Amino acid sequence: KDYKEPPPAPLFEPGELKSWSFYRAGIAEFVATFLFLYITILTVMGVNRSPSKCSSVGIQGIAWAFGGMIFALVYCTAGISDLMKFGLGWVGTGGHINPAVTFGLFLARKLSLTRAVFYMVMQCLGAICGAGVVKGFEGGARYEMYKGGANILSSGYTKGSGLGAEIVGTFVLVYTVFSATDAKRNARDSHVPILAPLPIGFAVFLVHLATIPITGTGINPARSLGAAVIFNKDVAWDDQWIFWVGPFIGAALAAVYHQIVIRAIPFKTRA
Amino acid sequence: KDYKEPPPAPLFEPGELKSWSFYRAGIAEFVATFLFLYITILTVMGVNRSPSKCSSVGIQGIAWAFGGMIFALVYCTAGISDLMKFGLGWVGTGGHINPAVTFGLFLARKLSLTRAVFYMVMQCLGAICGAGVVKGFEGGARYEMYKGGANILSSGYTKGSGLGAEIVGTFVLVYTVFSATDAKRNARDSHVPILAPLPIGFAVFLVHLATIPITGTGINPARSLGAAVIFNKDVAWDDQWIFWVGPFIGAALAAVYHQIVIRAIPFKTRA
Amino acid sequence: KDYKEPPPAPLFEPGELKSWSFYRAGIAEFVATFLFLYITILTVMGVNRSPSKCSSVGIQGIAWAFGGMIFALVYCTAGISDLMKFGLGWVGTGGHINPAVTFGLFLARKLSLTRAVFYMVMQCLGAICGAGVVKGFEGGARYEMYKGGANILSSGYTKGSGLGAEIVGTFVLVYTVFSATDAKRNARDSHVPILAPLPIGFAVFLVHLATIPITGTGINPARSLGAAVIFNKDVAWDDQWIFWVGPFIGAALAAVYHQIVIRAIPFKTRA
Amino acid sequence: KDYKEPPPAPLFEPGELKSWSFYRAGIAEFVATFLFLYITILTVMGVNRSPSKCSSVGIQGIAWAFGGMIFALVYCTAGISDLMKFGLGWVGTGGHINPAVTFGLFLARKLSLTRAVFYMVMQCLGAICGAGVVKGFEGGARYEMYKGGANILSSGYTKGSGLGAEIVGTFVLVYTVFSATDAKRNARDSHVPILAPLPIGFAVFLVHLATIPITGTGINPARSLGAAVIFNKDVAWDDQWIFWVGPFIGAALAAVYHQIVIRAIPFKTRA
Repeated sequence: KDYKEPPPAPLFEPGELKSWSFYRAGIAEFVATFLFLYITILTVMGVNRSPSKCSSVGIQGIAWAFGGMIFALVYCTAGISDLMKFGLGWVGTGGHINPAVTFGLFLARKLSLTRAVFYMVMQCLGAICGAGVVKGFEGGARYEMYKGGANILSSGYTKGSGLGAEIVGTFVLVYTVFSATDAKRNARDSHVPILAPLPIGFAVFLVHLATIPITGTGINPARSLGAAVIFNKDVAWDDQWIFWVGPFIGAALAAVYHQIVIRAIPFKTRA
Repeated sequence: KDYKEPPPAPLFEPGELKSWSFYRAGIAEFVATFLFLYITILTVMGVNRSPSKCSSVGIQGIAWAFGGMIFALVYCTAGISDLMKFGLGWVGTGGHINPAVTFGLFLARKLSLTRAVFYMVMQCLGAICGAGVVKGFEGGARYEMYKGGANILSSGYTKGSGLGAEIVGTFVLVYTVFSATDAKRNARDSHVPILAPLPIGFAVFLVHLATIPITGTGINPARSLGAAVIFNKDVAWDDQWIFWVGPFIGAALAAVYHQIVIRAIPFKTRA
Repeated sequence: KDYKEPPPAPLFEPGELKSWSFYRAGIAEFVATFLFLYITILTVMGVNRSPSKCSSVGIQGIAWAFGGMIFALVYCTAGISDLMKFGLGWVGTGGHINPAVTFGLFLARKLSLTRAVFYMVMQCLGAICGAGVVKGFEGGARYEMYKGGANILSSGYTKGSGLGAEIVGTFVLVYTVFSATDAKRNARDSHVPILAPLPIGFAVFLVHLATIPITGTGINPARSLGAAVIFNKDVAWDDQWIFWVGPFIGAALAAVYHQIVIRAIPFKTRA
Repeated sequence: KDYKEPPPAPLFEPGELKSWSFYRAGIAEFVATFLFLYITILTVMGVNRSPSKCSSVGIQGIAWAFGGMIFALVYCTAGISDLMKFGLGWVGTGGHINPAVTFGLFLARKLSLTRAVFYMVMQCLGAICGAGVVKGFEGGARYEMYKGGANILSSGYTKGSGLGAEIVGTFVLVYTVFSATDAKRNARDSHVPILAPLPIGFAVFLVHLATIPITGTGINPARSLGAAVIFNKDVAWDDQWIFWVGPFIGAALAAVYHQIVIRAIPFKTRA
C-alpha cells in the first residue's frame, strides 16, 4: 500500500483549454460560489435586520451558514472520489470556492497557472452575482442600511490586527484542506477522504466564531470582493486589500508548513 | 471499477402496483413526512410561544429541527445501501419526504410517474397528519395564535422575492441530493454514500438559516400544504402557490444543471 | 453478500450469568448513564441558573447536551464493530443507556429477559448517581430552586399531550436505533454502521428541540427517574408515570413498525 | 482478523531523539495548540466584549469553538491512518493537543516518558503563544478587562466542586479518546477510526456546555496555563492547581477504567 506523490502540475498546460472538463470545472466554481454568497449574505441580512439578535439565527447562525455551505458545496462540487485523487481529480472538477484555496493549491503545484487564474475569475464572478441576487431580493435601501454583508474592519481594531486575523484564519482553513486531501494519507487508507468536507467546513465555521467581531471574517477574497462590489461604498473598499493580502499570505504559510514540516518534501531523501 | 448508468425508469410500470415494496415505500413516505412535520412544527410552536426568543431554542433551533429531521429520516428511510443503488434502491424504499425531491428525481427518470404521484400523495397526507397532531397537543387557540408553522410571505418582501427564494433554496437541496447519490460517484468509490444523508440534511438547515426571515422557508410543498391545511386561514392559502411553483422550478433547474452540465449526459459520446 | 437474521434471543440464557462480559456490559451501562445524567443535568442547571438565558448555552444548548452525549456514549460504549453484529455484539457490550431502547430491543428478541432487566437496573442506578453528583456540586438549595432537571409537565399542556409527546418522541428514537442497526442493511453494506451513533444522537437532539417546552423531554425512563429521585418533590413524582408509560409504548410501536412494515418479518415467506 | 496488542512503549527510547519524526511531532503539537488557543480565546473575548450576549456567538458558540477546534485539529494533526495504528502512529505524529490526553496515553504505555514530557512542553509553549497573539490583537486593556479567557472558579462553587468538575470532565474526554482509538476495535473493523475525531471533539464540546458556568472549563492544563500566563493576575493563578490536578486525575481514572474494566487486560488469561 505504497503511495506515489503525483507529479507537480505544469505552469501552462495548453491541452486543458480544449477539454470540456476544464470549462465545466469553471462553471461549477461559478455556481458554487454563487450559492455560497447567496445563502451566507442572505443569512447576514436576516440577522442584521432583526431588531433583537435573539429573534434571528444570531451571529452563531451566520458562522454556521458560512461553514455549512462550504461543507455542502465541497461535498457536492469537489466530488469525494475526486478528493481521493487529489492533484488530479479535485482540481479537475472544481470545488475550491475560494481564491485563497486555489492559490495555496497552486503553490503546491496541484494545478496549472492557467487553471488557477480561470478558477479565481469564475469564483469572483459567482460571488458578485450571488450578492447581487440578495440585493435584488432585499431591495437596495435595506441592503445598504444593513451593509450587505461586506467585510469591514470593526472599530477598536488596528489594520494590523485585521490583517493578522485574516492570515491566521486562512492558515487554519488551508492547512485543513491540505491535511484532508493529503496523497500520503489517502494512499494508506483509501477511506479517509469520506470525511474531508466535514473538517474543511468546520474550519470555516470556527474561524467565523472567532473573527466575526474583528472583520466580519473574510478568509475568502471572492466572498469579500463580491459583497464589496454590490455594496459599493468607500467603507467596504478602503479595507478590501486586507481581505486579499491576508488570505494569500495565510494560504502560502499553510502550503509551506504542510510541504516542509509535515511532509518534509525538501528533505525526502534523508527522511 | 466502471459504472453503468441505470436505464431510465418507464413512465408507467404496471408490475410495481402489485409489489409489497411499492406500498411499503408509500407507507414509509407517509410515516417519515408525518414525523418530519410533527417535530418541526412543534419546534416552531415552542419558539413562537416563548415571550423572549432567548428562552426558547430560537430561530436557529428551528433551522436545526428541519435540517436534522431530514438527516435522520433520510438515513432511516432511504437506507444507505439503497442510496448506493440510486435509481432503483432509494426510489424503491422511499425516503424523499418532499414532493420537490420526488419531482426532480422523476425528471431525471429515476422513478415512474405512477410511483412519483403515489409518493407525493402519501407525503402530503403524512404532512397533514403530522401538523394535525401538533394542533391536538397545543390546542386550537394557541395553534392559531402562533400561526401553526404555516409558510407566509413576510411583510417587506415582494411575491417575486419569495418565489425566487423558494427556487434557489430548492435548487440547493435538490442539487445536493443529485450530487450525493450520483451513480458515477458511487461506482468509483463505493463508500461515498455513507455521508449522503448528512449534506442533504445540512442543505435543508442552511436554506432555513437564510430564508426563514423571508417566507419561513418551504422548499417542500408537502410541508407547506400540511401546515396550511391544519392552520386553514386565508393568509396561509394566499401564498400557497409560491410554495409549489417555486420548489418545482428549483428542482427542475437542479435536475437540468446536474444532468447537462455536471454529468454532460447529452454530450456523452463526445465526452 | 446475503444476510442471515440472527436467531431470536432466548428469554433466559443461564450461561450468560457466569460470563465476565455480562457484568462488564452492566458496568458499562452504569457508567454511561452516570455520565449522561451528569453532563446533561449540569447543563440544565447552568441554563436555569442564568438570569438571562442569553448568557447561558440556552435551551438549544440543553438539546445539544442530551443528543451529543448519546452520540458520544453510543460511539464509546456500544462499539461500532459491535453494532455491526447487532443482536449479539451491541447487546453484549451495552450502550443502550436507556430502558426504552433496551425494552424495544427486547421486544424484537435481541437480548434475553435476564439481560434486559439487568441493564435497566444498572441504567437507573447510574442515572441516580449522576444526578446526585450534580446536586453535590451545585449544593442542595440551588439544586432545588432550579428543579434539578426533573421532567415535569408544563402548565398549559394536558397529561394526554405529555404522554403523546413521550410516545412519539421515543418512537423517533427507537425507530432510528432499529434503522441504524438493521442486520439486513449491515449485510448488504458492511460500512453502514459507522455513522450509526450520529443519527441516534441526532434523534435525541431533535426530540428535545420539539418537546422541551412540553415535558422537558424524557424519552428515557432512567433519566426521568434519576432526576426525580434526587430532586424528590411531589411535582416530579406526580407525572413520573408519563415518563415510563410513554417511552415504553413508543418503543413498542417502533419495534412493531420496523419488524412488521419495514422488515415484513411476519410475511417473509410471501415476500 | 485477529488483533495483537501493541507492546507497551519503553520509558526511555533513546533512538527517537535522533529521528526527524520526533521533532516534527513536537512542532505539530506546538502549532495545533497554538491554533487551538488562538481561535478559542478569541471567541471567548468576542463574547465577553459584547454588551448583550445575544449579539455574540454566545456561550454555546464558545463551546463549539473548543470542541470544533479539537475535532479539526485531531483530524489534521493526528492523521486518521495513524489513529488506526494507535500506540505507534498517533503518538508518532502528535495530535494530542492536551497534556491530560498525553498523560492518559502515557499511563497506558502508549508512548515513552521522554516523548510525553516533550509533547507537554510543546503544548504549553504553543498555548502561551496562542493566547499571546490574542492579547496582541485585542490590546492589553481590553484583554485584561475581559479576563483573557482564563479559567477561574465561579463564585458560588467550592474548590471541591471545581476540582470534581475537572476530574469528571477530563474522564469523559480521555475515555472517548481510548474508546475511539482502541486497537481491538480497529482490528475488528478497519473503518472505525474514520469517525474518531468527531466523538473526541464532541466530548470536548459537551463538557464545555456543562461546566463553563463552574470553571470556564479547563480539562486541558496547557489551555489553562497559556491563558493564565498571558492574563497573569492573581485570580487566575490562585486556582491554577485545580486545572492540573483535576485533569490528571480524570485522565488516570479513564485509563484505569478502559484498561481494567473494558479491556480487562489484567484478567486476560482468564478472559
